[in-house]
Amino acid sequence: MINFKRIFNSISLLLLIEAFFILVCIPFSLYYGGEDAFPLLISAIITGFAGVTGWFFTKNAKKEIGKRDGYIIVTMVWVVFSVFGSLPFVISGSIPAFSDAFFETMSGFTTTGATILNDIEAMPHGLLMWRSLTQWLGGMGIIVLSLAILPILGIGGMQLFVAEVPGPTKEKLHPRVKETAKRLWGIYTIFTLAQTFLLMLGGMNFFDAINHSFTTMSTGGFSTKQASIAYFDSPYIQYVLIFFMVLAGTNFMLSYFALHFKLDKFWKNEEFRFYIGFILFFTIIISAGLYIGVGSGIEKSFRDAAFQVVSIITTTGFVTADYLAWPPVLTIMIFVIMFIGGSAGSTGGGVKVVRVLLVLKNSYIELKKMLNPHAIISVKYNNHVVSPNVIGNVITFIMIYILILIFSVAVISSFGYDMDTSLGAVASALGNIGPGLGRVGPVETYSHFPVVGKWYLSFLMLLGRLELFTVLILFAPAFWRK
Amino acid sequence: MINFKRIFNSISLLLLIEAFFILVCIPFSLYYGGEDAFPLLISAIITGFAGVTGWFFTKNAKKEIGKRDGYIIVTMVWVVFSVFGSLPFVISGSIPAFSDAFFETMSGFTTTGATILNDIEAMPHGLLMWRSLTQWLGGMGIIVLSLAILPILGIGGMQLFVAEVPGPTKEKLHPRVKETAKRLWGIYTIFTLAQTFLLMLGGMNFFDAINHSFTTMSTGGFSTKQASIAYFDSPYIQYVLIFFMVLAGTNFMLSYFALHFKLDKFWKNEEFRFYIGFILFFTIIISAGLYIGVGSGIEKSFRDAAFQVVSIITTTGFVTADYLAWPPVLTIMIFVIMFIGGSAGSTGGGVKVVRVLLVLKNSYIELKKMLNPHAIISVKYNNHVVSPNVIGNVITFIMIYILILIFSVAVISSFGYDMDTSLGAVASALGNIGPGLGRVGPVETYSHFPVVGKWYLSFLMLLGRLELFTVLILFAPAFWRK
Repeated sequence: MINFKRIFNSISLLLLIEAFFILVCIPFSLYYGGEDAFPLLISAIITGFAGVTGWFFTKNAKKEIGKRDGYIIVTMVWVVFSVFGSLPFVISGSIPAFSDAFFETMSGFTTTGATILNDIEAMPHGLLMWRSLTQWLGGMGIIVLSLAILPILGIGGMQLFVAEVPGPTKEKLHPRVKETAKRLWGIYTIFTLAQTFLLMLGGMNFFDAINHSFTTMSTGGFSTKQASIAYFDSPYIQYVLIFFMVLAGTNFMLSYFALHFKLDKFWKNEEFRFYIGFILFFTIIISAGLYIGVGSGIEKSFRDAAFQVVSIITTTGFVTADYLAWPPVLTIMIFVIMFIGGSAGSTGGGVKVVRVLLVLKNSYIELKKMLNPHAIISVKYNNHVVSPNVIGNVITFIMIYILILIFSVAVISSFGYDMDTSLGAVASALGNIGPGLGRVGPVETYSHFPVVGKWYLSFLMLLGRLELFTVLILFAPAFWRK
Repeated sequence: MINFKRIFNSISLLLLIEAFFILVCIPFSLYYGGEDAFPLLISAIITGFAGVTGWFFTKNAKKEIGKRDGYIIVTMVWVVFSVFGSLPFVISGSIPAFSDAFFETMSGFTTTGATILNDIEAMPHGLLMWRSLTQWLGGMGIIVLSLAILPILGIGGMQLFVAEVPGPTKEKLHPRVKETAKRLWGIYTIFTLAQTFLLMLGGMNFFDAINHSFTTMSTGGFSTKQASIAYFDSPYIQYVLIFFMVLAGTNFMLSYFALHFKLDKFWKNEEFRFYIGFILFFTIIISAGLYIGVGSGIEKSFRDAAFQVVSIITTTGFVTADYLAWPPVLTIMIFVIMFIGGSAGSTGGGVKVVRVLLVLKNSYIELKKMLNPHAIISVKYNNHVVSPNVIGNVITFIMIYILILIFSVAVISSFGYDMDTSLGAVASALGNIGPGLGRVGPVETYSHFPVVGKWYLSFLMLLGRLELFTVLILFAPAFWRK
């Protein structure tokens, strides 16, 4: 039996947290004139009231909670949060259409960063703060949910953990997952503050600095400026962002070790080595391409390449250069790395480095087997043999990813969009990136999509953020039986 | 030890066959004025001389021939045939540049159908005949090689057979493979003649009819007209071609059974059911799209859809409508089916229906396992359990296919081509289709590619035609050791 009462109870409690964070935006609103303070307050009250009411009617729910309940909670949290999170935008009239507001908020909580806003600077500061906070909370959710909240709910099964923070990185950090979650949350906050400080050193005001730090650490990519990071014409700021984006795309467990002076853990981790390897490889090639093909200076070529590569591979989505204006081969490389994504256990989206790595290794091993059919060779990761089960899981993930991609490109193109735009929008939504290709390129927005298209893309963001299966499983009739 | 002498011996003997077929074109040349008779004769003599010389110096080769020799022979036959097959074009001056002639001939022998010719009607008839014959021989090669020639050479191992005619269709036809090959060759010829007859009934002259039959049964797609089949503005001819293209993309073993009144074999074969299913599914959707979106009449919408879908899915590449002028979603569907391809044991290229089918089934099973981790469920094909080994092989094939695709798109785009053109050219060359997207669309040619691009695409055609592994294995250092 699915314990619906318990599910509603959990979500009600979480809504109280959301209401609290909406309230947090009010001081910022007041400081900058307060025109959006009242809509924020109303939204917080509605959200809080919904939470309290929901909790009141479900407080006598049975404590037992099963795996299936867990799956339902995870997906529902993101949906319900996006519904209530849209309120400030709708009530204030800043984003009057609910479908637009929902798109923007889902894009926030899934740390995608795709926007329908065509004049971000016109939005009041309290709302901008809330917009950035949705990403910060979303990123926190992705890291913490699987390690702490789900175990509190009684769902500690590795099965679900794998669905949330994928990849075979089960290396134990601390026996108590709840403790772990708190520590990771701490690191996440420390990094955010450190970045805010460093950005302010580069001349950003506190508001812009903390907003961009929120959306960097979550690999979200919302900016307070329509021109994104290109607005801040400062190499220093760009390098700071590159550094923190790389950090945000790294497994937070590794960063935890690093803060305890166990730096060797970084290099002993194969995923991290490949993650850095991919970044360096594409940065060098694209730098060379920009230097030769476009004729920018050496430093500018390197910086533009590094920033865009890191921004896309970590699925952050900040922009300092319009990569659609680059020679086609460089644009295509940017498109290719949209599929790599961040590391497992980071806030990055996409397929994830570890999965790409395992598939490459598996293909290599299978080719080797073709030459020596009797040889017994296994895929190894971090010096351990990876079970065929895990490999099967990874391959299925990638196949489903591709099938969803193909199907979705057909859906989006049916609104009349060309292949570049359709491919770009789908890859970007599914990978939680932000910018895409064609009419959703780095200097464009998603405002021109028809309502159905926006809902569909919102669904893709959710699907991608929750590692496909967590959401897809809810569509299986067998899930609801027995 | 690799038996190089024996390898050269086999190839020399095969060159005599090629020389014979060049001679076959001379009567056609003479009938239409004979301007290309002399270049054809010279080419046949050079090819024949090379064959005789090669045979003379290798006739004392040891009979033993290993699996590795087999791999080398297969790849070399296609390369050497394309080199000598280019001679008539180069010597006659019809295609003066060797890289162009090689591209055209490789496109022929791999039954791709991509052309660099911008005025096909200007080419003399003997050369047109040879051009169509390269495809017919290529198609014959693909069917027969794996079933008959390789066993004669002493390579009967299933391993290699799987590499050549892929997919787990090992259902025995006759115990003697050599016999089987002869029968299939017979069917291939009968179908070609039947089609020629039916095309002539529709008003085509004998020359056009036999040429198009050659290039239909091989799923090649070379036409004697620059406008391809659109030139023959006849619904009857188009329906005849649709029927025979479907036949050419069907496993020839099934056709053999059909000719012996065992029609039930067709429907008992899962690959055939899905092959027809894919064709119907996309034909219906695209027909509806053309009817609603473009406003063609019902019959015309259906015919245009059916022709283009069948032409692309079977990887033939004939054209009666410019699908790039269709609404984007329909163009994208055509692009998607470029990857499905024909059936195993047919002359069609691409990934092959059986592989797509097995991957879909495997993904479904893996998702099921996620719901019931303890359930033991296996992928079944034609009511038999498919071994994990075969599934692993199929998945690796598709992964390598995707990796080659991505890498090649980067290569082609580095010549300055946009994403559509790069993707289209690569998908088309690798799938042995012919037309692609963008600047290699249905009404374009490949003439504008730089020389390096033409060589690279020729290589992709070979790679695709020989099921990737047969060629790739030659690049493994381990292959040449021990």
